[in-house]
Amino acid sequence: MSLLENFDFAALRELLGTLGADGWLLYDFHGINPSATRVLGIHGMGTRRFFVLLPRAGKPVAIAHRIELASFEGFPGEVRPYAAWRELHAVLGPLVAGKTLAMEVSPRDGVPYLDRVPHGVIELLEGFGARIVSSAPLVTRFAARWSPAELAGHRRAAEGLAGIARETLRWAGSELARGAEVRETAVQGRVMEAFARTGLVTDHPPIVGFQANAANPHYEPLEGADRRLQVGELLLLDLWAGPSRGTVFADQTWMAFAGRTPDAEVRRVWETVRAARDAAVDTLRGRWGKATVTGAELDDAARGVITKAGFGEFFPHRTGHSIDRDLHGSGPHLDNFETADDRALLAGIGFSVEPGIYLPGRFGMRSEINVFLDAAGPEVTPRVPQTDLLLV
Amino acid sequence: MSLLENFDFAALRELLGTLGADGWLLYDFHGINPSATRVLGIHGMGTRRFFVLLPRAGKPVAIAHRIELASFEGFPGEVRPYAAWRELHAVLGPLVAGKTLAMEVSPRDGVPYLDRVPHGVIELLEGFGARIVSSAPLVTRFAARWSPAELAGHRRAAEGLAGIARETLRWAGSELARGAEVRETAVQGRVMEAFARTGLVTDHPPIVGFQANAANPHYEPLEGADRRLQVGELLLLDLWAGPSRGTVFADQTWMAFAGRTPDAEVRRVWETVRAARDAAVDTLRGRWGKATVTGAELDDAARGVITKAGFGEFFPHRTGHSIDRDLHGSGPHLDNFETADDRALLAGIGFSVEPGIYLPGRFGMRSEINVFLDAAGPEVTPRVPQTDLLLV
Repeated sequence: MSLLENFDFAALRELLGTLGADGWLLYDFHGINPSATRVLGIHGMGTRRFFVLLPRAGKPVAIAHRIELASFEGFPGEVRPYAAWRELHAVLGPLVAGKTLAMEVSPRDGVPYLDRVPHGVIELLEGFGARIVSSAPLVTRFAARWSPAELAGHRRAAEGLAGIARETLRWAGSELARGAEVRETAVQGRVMEAFARTGLVTDHPPIVGFQANAANPHYEPLEGADRRLQVGELLLLDLWAGPSRGTVFADQTWMAFAGRTPDAEVRRVWETVRAARDAAVDTLRGRWGKATVTGAELDDAARGVITKAGFGEFFPHRTGHSIDRDLHGSGPHLDNFETADDRALLAGIGFSVEPGIYLPGRFGMRSEINVFLDAAGPEVTPRVPQTDLLLV
Repeated sequence: MSLLENFDFAALRELLGTLGADGWLLYDFHGINPSATRVLGIHGMGTRRFFVLLPRAGKPVAIAHRIELASFEGFPGEVRPYAAWRELHAVLGPLVAGKTLAMEVSPRDGVPYLDRVPHGVIELLEGFGARIVSSAPLVTRFAARWSPAELAGHRRAAEGLAGIARETLRWAGSELARGAEVRETAVQGRVMEAFARTGLVTDHPPIVGFQANAANPHYEPLEGADRRLQVGELLLLDLWAGPSRGTVFADQTWMAFAGRTPDAEVRRVWETVRAARDAAVDTLRGRWGKATVTGAELDDAARGVITKAGFGEFFPHRTGHSIDRDLHGSGPHLDNFETADDRALLAGIGFSVEPGIYLPGRFGMRSEINVFLDAAGPEVTPRVPQTDLLLV
């Protein structure tokens, strides 16, 4: 894979136009800005500073250290080497002077995931006469967008996960019914076996939490210290996997109840979580193609449902995260809670929608689906999301 | 190890006084600022933003996310939790308003190793009415300083390395003399065996380069593609190790010549490199205790010798790097070439001194020693540095 392979320069020019920017200036030093290396397709971490200008007009220019020129072999543009910092300044200054440049900054650290350029670098560039604006839509378009092959792989993984989740939760219920011991780590193990059988790979076993453990959004069962399922308890299963490492994973959470008749409160929490999840998707569908929609607005939509139902303080995390080749991707998150993610949701990207309600020491629920933003509109995966609490 | 264990608050107050700062504000997000976690003694990477204020007067204050409070257990001060970004702002604003705060910034990115706080974070803090100054001397004092045990370990490692280097280079010469094949990777292997035998550990095999390979400052021999030693060639051996991982390593480069009579050019390059090395140490000794000395000034001293001898363009790297629990440490580097490291050299820290001359395709030489800055003056390790080219 060579640098900037298949990079859509026409799309870049168009987006730079809407930003009123003369170019996208990518900066990295010791891996501080993962979007830069992702977009360029540079592998391995550099030990020296580089700047790459992708201009609206003209050829790309890379300013790279002499001892790290190997990283820029095949660069589709001009490579200007430097060794001493005075040379770096001598090359960089004239390149940026008087230009408006998009970089990975986020005003007032609104989106810390995007806020990657150190203060001193901005100071240096502004000192050379550059004006810096946020590259948010460029990162979304060029780092977070799925390829058709990645979308196809995600869809397959999503249907696989949905089947495995339903089958595994039903197995847990039937084991309990026949009097067997069902532990959280056993459910985990069964999911991992199903992944292996169906050719799905993951970077971590799923989260399995029974009843009070499901009330901890960061719970991880540990063998020997995990919980044994009892009749009348809730089961939370959060699982993620994809066709291979470095592809777009699917990421889902399913809820089950070990019994036939969940009580009114359990039903009400489930219905609230599901309604919050669907409110985010409905808001997106209602606005898509008509106006810009941000991740923060979908968080507000889901959170609004939960707050209105009186559970606001029990939903202590964002509604969803960007998904790309990283499970927690570089695009917009559905978040106006942990961060103020005012980045626009653009066609070609995907994310999770996963509101939850966690009643400490009692029980918790989360429902998680994924959305791919097709140009024609949002596509939810899996095709048939969970509507009712699984009674197992 | 608990947070801020053995932290010298009196020393902090004094240094903050000289900086004219009301406190040191440590910020981290996803490991972007290694000095912050190092100084606090936090292990593992956080996924949410934190701010820790170590004030000149009063108790430390940590602002940490609710789901990551575990990292702040035992914090010697007040922990103010937040979940939503509005809460973060509500807590952070009043804490910093009107204060002058030291942070890991470096004006105009002069020292990129120190320039760790994203632009948007500074913007946010300045918006709250804070004034930000560079924490450079604080990082040097609290992240790069060696403990007495670390100094003792470094000294032992330094004497061990010097013995292993001399012995290994002599072995290579005697093997060659008896007609045996001596390859670069074989010399590497012999050093690794000697490390194991003497209880030294390293994170990487040494650099061994013969003749033209020694002209590449980033050379690494690969088995099968490495060079076989010939009579009349130079041998470069750069080795580093310590008593255990996470301690202060020693890092040395030794030069040998396979023969009895190096020619005039080889002798001249060696004498220039050695003189450059000694010029840095002499400059430091001459100024220590009288005036502030910066890493950039010692680089200028060494580089001046090499430039004056006409080899300036063949010395394409800094003169030395900070050494602490990381081989490339967080304190001042001897560098006014790759970066403009104007950080003051403070008592209690250490660094390498390793000028080199690399004549591409022909041969290269480097001589590397380490310096510990005792309050009483600089201490060079090993006790007896290389003075003459080893004739082996």
